Amino acid sequence: MTNNSEIKYFEGFNSPNQMKLQSGQELGPITIAYETFGKLNDSKDNAVLVCHALTGDAHVSGENGWWDFLIGPNKAIDTNKNFVICSNAIGGCKGSTGPSSKDPKTGKPYGLNFPVITIGDMVQAQKALIDELGIAQLKMVLGGSMGGMQAMEWSIMYPKRVKACTVVASASKLSPQALAFDAVSRNAITSDEKWAAGNYAHDEPPEKGLAIARMIGHITYLSNESMNKKFGRKLQKKEDYSYDFSTDFQIESYLKYQGDKFVNRFDANSYLYISKAVDYFDLTKKYGSVEKAFKNTNCKFLVIAISTDWLFSPKQSKDIVKALLKQSKEVTYAQIDSPFGHDAFLIESTQMTSLVQNFLNQVK
Amino acid sequence: MTNNSEIKYFEGFNSPNQMKLQSGQELGPITIAYETFGKLNDSKDNAVLVCHALTGDAHVSGENGWWDFLIGPNKAIDTNKNFVICSNAIGGCKGSTGPSSKDPKTGKPYGLNFPVITIGDMVQAQKALIDELGIAQLKMVLGGSMGGMQAMEWSIMYPKRVKACTVVASASKLSPQALAFDAVSRNAITSDEKWAAGNYAHDEPPEKGLAIARMIGHITYLSNESMNKKFGRKLQKKEDYSYDFSTDFQIESYLKYQGDKFVNRFDANSYLYISKAVDYFDLTKKYGSVEKAFKNTNCKFLVIAISTDWLFSPKQSKDIVKALLKQSKEVTYAQIDSPFGHDAFLIESTQMTSLVQNFLNQVK
Repeated sequence: MTNNSEIKYFEGFNSPNQMKLQSGQELGPITIAYETFGKLNDSKDNAVLVCHALTGDAHVSGENGWWDFLIGPNKAIDTNKNFVICSNAIGGCKGSTGPSSKDPKTGKPYGLNFPVITIGDMVQAQKALIDELGIAQLKMVLGGSMGGMQAMEWSIMYPKRVKACTVVASASKLSPQALAFDAVSRNAITSDEKWAAGNYAHDEPPEKGLAIARMIGHITYLSNESMNKKFGRKLQKKEDYSYDFSTDFQIESYLKYQGDKFVNRFDANSYLYISKAVDYFDLTKKYGSVEKAFKNTNCKFLVIAISTDWLFSPKQSKDIVKALLKQSKEVTYAQIDSPFGHDAFLIESTQMTSLVQNFLNQVK
Repeated sequence: MTNNSEIKYFEGFNSPNQMKLQSGQELGPITIAYETFGKLNDSKDNAVLVCHALTGDAHVSGENGWWDFLIGPNKAIDTNKNFVICSNAIGGCKGSTGPSSKDPKTGKPYGLNFPVITIGDMVQAQKALIDELGIAQLKMVLGGSMGGMQAMEWSIMYPKRVKACTVVASASKLSPQALAFDAVSRNAITSDEKWAAGNYAHDEPPEKGLAIARMIGHITYLSNESMNKKFGRKLQKKEDYSYDFSTDFQIESYLKYQGDKFVNRFDANSYLYISKAVDYFDLTKKYGSVEKAFKNTNCKFLVIAISTDWLFSPKQSKDIVKALLKQSKEVTYAQIDSPFGHDAFLIESTQMTSLVQNFLNQVK
């Protein structure tokens, strides 16, 4: 069986049934771009929803799929047996409604007229898609980083709709240090003259600011250890320092490359909105405490942390596990031993495969 | 005795005796702005040279002095007994020759025509000042962060001129992670349209880019722990999220304030040059190994690390100590127990005072 991975579109929340957002604002109509892999069985109980991270998209499996090592025929999430759904988060720029979409009121891109959305809002939109697909209960919802935040919200907002929840390299809220990096990143975008208060033309985006945001991000996705191993202080194609302001070190060249590559595939306003949603995610603020947040959940959990992740630390994962245990929920905690920092959830195929496969096998 | 802290200027390296820089280029004439505290004794053996960090200046003691808790009458470095000298590093913007100084060839500010300088070059310039003051041997040279790099270079480049060397929160070379932060910071400055390839007008500097650089810096100067303690996820003068792109969190507001304040006191091109000098500092590259670097040193050392410093980690300090011990040099290692991260060397007055005072008392 091959992977069916053409992109599909769900349209919903037409007037007067617009989405009620956490901010109190409304949004609609919306489009959700999604891909599916495998086949929904007759009892519709083999559906696995995958939630992507900050700059991800619906293309989770197949060629260039961002979690292809984990999802596909005979992989940990075996698409010969499971029906995998992955949708682009609202606010994004990969087919779902976001700030670069046309505002039906003006016929122009929303820009900053797009309402600020939250992780809960993303989940509410995904739930409409799952309803549309006729799936009463997801066999599993999973995600890493921001995807883990969505997975948690699924288990909390729609407890009867989720059998199992896998949260990878995530947290119940960002640390102030992570908030700080996001704030500076957004500042880099909005400081770029070309940003023009969010009204830049499609072909004249604030590339420099967005590249800086991405570079900052990349530093936080890697560990000091992996940077040492991969780059150290090695020079870029030269024997000695240049004694000018060109790129001297390989790490500089790597970041520049990552920044430049990113501006060709991501929208600057989406970066603002999605990073803001991540900043706002805070189970304690929304539900009173992490423990209270999970009170009515009705699924088993797998929480995975990465040993060298300093953006979403193992301690933050353990705090989630403690809250779940206090609520007597069924939870497995695992720490991936990896030098790769936060990025490890997209790299450590063997450990990830083993953990997710074992957990999914227990979901009946 | 009161502190004498008026700023003074040393002029040197007039043609044809210009500075020979590590890059092979020449620089001169140069001005060094410096301050002195206390009185040089008749035998001229009570001089202590203090080297400042990335954005510091000569005003180390007295009102608003950046190390005033450590240096002054009856303090750890007692200016009733010692003659303290602190000079602004070349490349800086606090009175010493730097990229904002007039290029004698053109009568206009150097801008990017200023040669790239190194920590060794800064030390070479300071040494001319010490010669001018008639000081054959410094009782102590000390500095934190970039100042520690200068202190080490003093002990290596002019072994007979230094009796004692104190290195605080420093390293024999930056980690690739620190290089990465510097690279992104410089990128933020050079990405600002107003930077104009370094030829911005004095009253129209690239403020936005420089503020971003400073914000990135500040994140690295604090520890996650101290950010948690000081800011957590507290909101800035509001009860709930704003659901817009204004400043929500106190940490955002703090960084914005630090960024805005900084652009009023620091020159963007100086930031480029000085951060580049710090990036280039690498005792292994220059001398073959850290051990070899210290081979001919002739002073006792005090190396101080900060427990929560992740920009200049305790491990990096210990590596310096190990190299010194392998060369059978006299060295004391101390770790300051502090939640304040890299910034602690400017905060932990009690521990710093005790360590530096005891060490200085041993220097005869």
